[in-house]
Amino acid sequence: MSPEPEFKYKQCLIIRNDVKMSCGKKCAQLAHAAIAAYEKADKITKKKWFDEGMKKVALKVNSQKDLYVIKTLAEDAGIPAAIIADAGMTEIPPGTVTALGLGPAKSEDLDKITGDLQLL
Amino acid sequence: MSPEPEFKYKQCLIIRNDVKMSCGKKCAQLAHAAIAAYEKADKITKKKWFDEGMKKVALKVNSQKDLYVIKTLAEDAGIPAAIIADAGMTEIPPGTVTALGLGPAKSEDLDKITGDLQLL
Repeated sequence: MSPEPEFKYKQCLIIRNDVKMSCGKKCAQLAHAAIAAYEKADKITKKKWFDEGMKKVALKVNSQKDLYVIKTLAEDAGIPAAIIADAGMTEIPPGTVTALGLGPAKSEDLDKITGDLQLL
Repeated sequence: MSPEPEFKYKQCLIIRNDVKMSCGKKCAQLAHAAIAAYEKADKITKKKWFDEGMKKVALKVNSQKDLYVIKTLAEDAGIPAAIIADAGMTEIPPGTVTALGLGPAKSEDLDKITGDLQLL
């Protein structure tokens, strides 16, 4: 058996599980989060992450407060972080905070902040 | 009632619905598709799409063949298109084609190609 490839870099995409959304809606919100956080990352990190295959993990939290706590911890650690608020055309009220994108950043740095979160 | 804002640009993120994946897995695949197609778009289109709020629509098809047909139609129309194959660490076999990202591009051009697809 070949060893599992190691991913030194990843993105964590975190959805608010307390906001009722269809799977398609969650996908759109997390794709927003992915691109918004990606745009905040530095070129070298983006390139390394690309070359490794752009690892992404979809996670969930149970409140808006949890999302902001994680955002603050990430920013304090120098990790690109982007909060997503929905335009509210469909399913949920305008301005509802739905998601948080983190990274790409070093997996070990992200794990310190998101290691306790459940997979979506 | 204020009129609905018009989105001249959007991204279409298309998942293979015939491949069994969790919602979290689908989100990660479509986030891949979003960034991979975004990287292929030109700067001016990206900026216009950003300024409009980065509209994204999550759609589904029922076969790999359908995904490739749409990709070819998109490329023929000059729309950035990125097929995603999964690394296969979790849930599905390595190399499985899972998703297609289209755009950002003009909504009217995307609608000609994706107008008949169902929302995810």
